[in-house]
Amino acid sequence: MSRTKPLSGYPEFLPAHAMIEQRVLDTLRGVFELHGFGRIETRAVEPLSELSRKGEITKEVYAVKRLHAAAEDAAELGLHFDLTVPFARYVLENAGQLQFPFRRYQMQKVWRGERPQEGRYREFLQCDIDVIGRDTLATHHDAELPLVALEALEKLHVDLGLPPALMHINNRKLLEGFYQGLGIEETAPILQRVDKLDKIGPDGVRKLLTDELALSATAIDAILGLAQIQTNDESFVDQVHALGVTSELMETGLVELSQVLSVVRAELPERVTVDLRIARGLDYYTGMVQETELVGWQKIGAVSGGGRYDALARDNRSTYPGVGLTIGVTRILVPLLAKNALAISRQVPSAVFVAVDAEDNRSEAQKVAASLRRRGISCEIAPKSDKFGKQIAFADKRGIPYVWFGGSQGSVKDIRSGEQVDADATVWSPADVDLIPQVTAS
Amino acid sequence: MSRTKPLSGYPEFLPAHAMIEQRVLDTLRGVFELHGFGRIETRAVEPLSELSRKGEITKEVYAVKRLHAAAEDAAELGLHFDLTVPFARYVLENAGQLQFPFRRYQMQKVWRGERPQEGRYREFLQCDIDVIGRDTLATHHDAELPLVALEALEKLHVDLGLPPALMHINNRKLLEGFYQGLGIEETAPILQRVDKLDKIGPDGVRKLLTDELALSATAIDAILGLAQIQTNDESFVDQVHALGVTSELMETGLVELSQVLSVVRAELPERVTVDLRIARGLDYYTGMVQETELVGWQKIGAVSGGGRYDALARDNRSTYPGVGLTIGVTRILVPLLAKNALAISRQVPSAVFVAVDAEDNRSEAQKVAASLRRRGISCEIAPKSDKFGKQIAFADKRGIPYVWFGGSQGSVKDIRSGEQVDADATVWSPADVDLIPQVTAS
Repeated sequence: MSRTKPLSGYPEFLPAHAMIEQRVLDTLRGVFELHGFGRIETRAVEPLSELSRKGEITKEVYAVKRLHAAAEDAAELGLHFDLTVPFARYVLENAGQLQFPFRRYQMQKVWRGERPQEGRYREFLQCDIDVIGRDTLATHHDAELPLVALEALEKLHVDLGLPPALMHINNRKLLEGFYQGLGIEETAPILQRVDKLDKIGPDGVRKLLTDELALSATAIDAILGLAQIQTNDESFVDQVHALGVTSELMETGLVELSQVLSVVRAELPERVTVDLRIARGLDYYTGMVQETELVGWQKIGAVSGGGRYDALARDNRSTYPGVGLTIGVTRILVPLLAKNALAISRQVPSAVFVAVDAEDNRSEAQKVAASLRRRGISCEIAPKSDKFGKQIAFADKRGIPYVWFGGSQGSVKDIRSGEQVDADATVWSPADVDLIPQVTAS
Repeated sequence: MSRTKPLSGYPEFLPAHAMIEQRVLDTLRGVFELHGFGRIETRAVEPLSELSRKGEITKEVYAVKRLHAAAEDAAELGLHFDLTVPFARYVLENAGQLQFPFRRYQMQKVWRGERPQEGRYREFLQCDIDVIGRDTLATHHDAELPLVALEALEKLHVDLGLPPALMHINNRKLLEGFYQGLGIEETAPILQRVDKLDKIGPDGVRKLLTDELALSATAIDAILGLAQIQTNDESFVDQVHALGVTSELMETGLVELSQVLSVVRAELPERVTVDLRIARGLDYYTGMVQETELVGWQKIGAVSGGGRYDALARDNRSTYPGVGLTIGVTRILVPLLAKNALAISRQVPSAVFVAVDAEDNRSEAQKVAASLRRRGISCEIAPKSDKFGKQIAFADKRGIPYVWFGGSQGSVKDIRSGEQVDADATVWSPADVDLIPQVTAS
């Protein structure tokens, strides 16, 4: 086997970075479970017919086919490109055995055949949380999901040193109603163009709306006016009204958005802003929508997105409305780790390296290790009965903080301070902070 | 979207079973990390050239291709069918940045395009642990890896109620040396046929060895004699010698096997047996080999397998010997769960259901929930301010043990006993056993 090159678009982590990723996933999962979300996992493949209904996405799907299937066989399966399509299918498939509202999280790889580029991957890890109801789902979940996501991202910030998050929230009813008030029925072409505000600026968007959609200057003024409203408080309501558009649907959207803002601000006032430019491309959103960035790392793009959908799925008896969102773990971690923005205190799980003074005494080291492990202390035994200096260097290279010498009644050295104390393997413990590797901003 | 049928060969779990699977994975991971194994994850795809070198496996590989790639483009990537090939590639790719011996675990899905049948899946989850050295790796790891696997399986048995494991160990040097002693150079065709002993019995194997390999009756007697040796103690050494075959390599194998047996027996005497029939098909094993079954569930087949390999990978400068094994989580869990051999105490992570007496008081419930979560207590808030009876039924249906009423100075009811006590949300905790869902044999 010759040495191979990494595959572009398929990021893989070295062991230390893989441990950081694991800690991030554990943290997210911890928050999701505290809020009563249970984990499910769906298969990696879906029938191509399910994956390709949205025309624009078809090109990005990876088809999967047995290598020796007859050449004329059409591929029938593809790798999922998100976790929403599989989740909708799972809900329909198991509706009779699920209890609604159904709260679930899912942490899985997804695949997209896009051209790899900065921030775009062909394989990446997403964490989705959704609450899905049968036929109805109360609007208080519109605030709950953003809050759970922000709480999770806040914990990543506080506990692991990731950058803080800022969630931009909006409401599709507000947008749809506003456009209806302007006499515009088909909003998708407008939303698509307004979405380019960041890239091409208001004048660029104005040109697109004029040239391509032939909108009036008055309508465009209103549209650009709306898209540029961004407030941390309730003042967005007055700013919208000042644009002079009236619509019942818009008023509903304003009320819903105010409610979400108020609940989220009560918990995490610094982490949320109303931003009426946010639309989220996917056409199934029907109420609250959000897009989240990491402060100081806006160039990464949205690290979370989601919203309310009135009918994620539908079967003969019911529709399934929900509120959900994705956190893009690969999208967060690949750039942060590439820039060394996060560090971990050691390369391996082991807190203790048990030295072996002679191969004949290896079983003594095994007893020490067994005693420590019984009390939840991760350790590894010297692979070779080298000179102690070499063994300490071995531990040091991996960042293992403690080296154990002798049998169960032995001694333990903190190789950072050099301090060595007599210790009994049945009772000694490392400092709490050394029990598992520490992740910090660096 | 119409209701779909499950895809044959792609098992998916309902939420309660997914929680059991998660607990199994957490338990395995906990043991691996206690032993200093760090997690890595590799991409799902490998170049087809890497996946198809072993002729017999080619057919089982799933090729992956962008749906709209030109039809004449040959597929270049495939889904990995195990975690060994990707791990070998990862080691070569990152050899300069890894520290050897390198201890890693990997828990990922693998895919095989086999015909789905009892115990065979097209997508399944494997947990691999390996220790890999550069150029050399001490033989004490031959006992370490089986012991870690057995310790993990024992914890699944004791903590979660899975059936106990029995590991069958052998040594390829013993086999190779024995066959050499019989004057046989090419052992693979023999091992293949002896492997059918369980299915077709000694007479069947004798017939194959006579008809297809034209071996002498004396040689076949010795081969069948060896294959039928199974002991829980060192007596296998005398039994092998009694077959009258002499070989230096065989003696090395006997010593290595005795050492592994002795180390494993010292810890888990009931969980290991020497079984000289075990060969493991893959040709890269060169020393210790093991295959593990669950007692009472032998029909599942091997739930773990692995061994020593002298050169898993090789680059211009080094070879990478290792000892590794796989635990087949899907293969264990799908049949156990299908037979309801395991149960979980509730369907959701929540320990507490916070009732809401009126929508206007929802924020009170949110405060209670926040207090509980701050202390690591998973909870969910009533989705609707129904009558309390309905809310209790909602919690009961999900197996949530406690329902909270009123604000932070409220009361909490254990809905199993019906007992209700006044409680302060800033200090009250559920019984330890109720903190997370309990998995048990059922």
